[in-house]
Amino acid sequence: MSAVDLSRPIVPGMPVWPGDPAVEAAPACTVEGDGCSVTRVTLGTHTGTHLDAPAHLVSGGRALDTLPPEAFFGTAAVVRGFPSLDALEALSGVDFLLFSTGWASQWGKPGYFYRYPVPTPALLEQIIHMGVRGLGMDTPSPDPPDSLEHHRLLLGAGLVVVENLCNLCKLEGRRVWFAALPLPLAGADGAPVRAIALPLEEEDA
Amino acid sequence: MSAVDLSRPIVPGMPVWPGDPAVEAAPACTVEGDGCSVTRVTLGTHTGTHLDAPAHLVSGGRALDTLPPEAFFGTAAVVRGFPSLDALEALSGVDFLLFSTGWASQWGKPGYFYRYPVPTPALLEQIIHMGVRGLGMDTPSPDPPDSLEHHRLLLGAGLVVVENLCNLCKLEGRRVWFAALPLPLAGADGAPVRAIALPLEEEDA
Repeated sequence: MSAVDLSRPIVPGMPVWPGDPAVEAAPACTVEGDGCSVTRVTLGTHTGTHLDAPAHLVSGGRALDTLPPEAFFGTAAVVRGFPSLDALEALSGVDFLLFSTGWASQWGKPGYFYRYPVPTPALLEQIIHMGVRGLGMDTPSPDPPDSLEHHRLLLGAGLVVVENLCNLCKLEGRRVWFAALPLPLAGADGAPVRAIALPLEEEDA
Repeated sequence: MSAVDLSRPIVPGMPVWPGDPAVEAAPACTVEGDGCSVTRVTLGTHTGTHLDAPAHLVSGGRALDTLPPEAFFGTAAVVRGFPSLDALEALSGVDFLLFSTGWASQWGKPGYFYRYPVPTPALLEQIIHMGVRGLGMDTPSPDPPDSLEHHRLLLGAGLVVVENLCNLCKLEGRRVWFAALPLPLAGADGAPVRAIALPLEEEDA
């Protein structure tokens, strides 16, 4: 099985979290006029498939460019839905947990940023206890829309959070090699990522 | 040996190719005022450490979001300088070639975008013949400043080109696992990347 792209394309006018900057793109140079094409892009740091750093919630917290590369890749288990506490045990030994809730199918619909499923604090505490480097999901947030408590729990414990993943449904139950390398935006609270998964053979997993 | 970050930090006012858009960043939300921090970023698609897609030079050429994830990661050999044609043979069997010319030390100096070393067309033709997926270098371009011929050769043959890498000097002579995952900017001619290298043990290389 070849690598799976887990990232939403970044397109002008794409859906963003309510109040976040709109995505814009305009030619700065063109092949016809200048010999080569260069595009000026404006976007918010939490656009599309993106990674949250502690600085997203903690004034003076660690920014993306101060985290080591190892924070952004490693082995991952792709799980259907948010598992029960009992089911978590079978998922030990990986660097990341990726939750495929099915909400990716709502991308672009009016309720996408409002009515998505969220994990319980008890589940998140148990995940932190497992020692993973981070978690990812096919929803816009581990918190309900009006809260940031789960973010505080996760980012406060040093985990990274990858939001708005897609295509996880193709990998449910699999162990994968996962990478979500954010731009090294100096001092930044987060950054869009190109996230990919490479399914591991059973003997590697 | 742990992973090595090969990417320049992206910072407002950083050096860019002459005429390219300036990097800007401004708070869209703040922890103090809004509970969480979000930043509006404007940058050119060829800012800092970045990857060129065929659409950079070919009107209607393949854009970043149409290349498969495999185009952006794999094994790589890190080479000191641009090698002779004879020396290329010893570098077969990898997905990428990364050239450490020493020019990274000139980053931020007035001549960085003007007087860098470039490979010969004969070397590039031989590299294309080897069947690698792409090449990377610690200089701003495989072409002299006033030319795009080498770009046409490489991108026309379907290779990707990663420019303005840094820290390659720490890995000269090594084989590494390399990833340079560009943002999935729809239709884009290129994108900044977070590029990393993970040194392979001799038995893996």
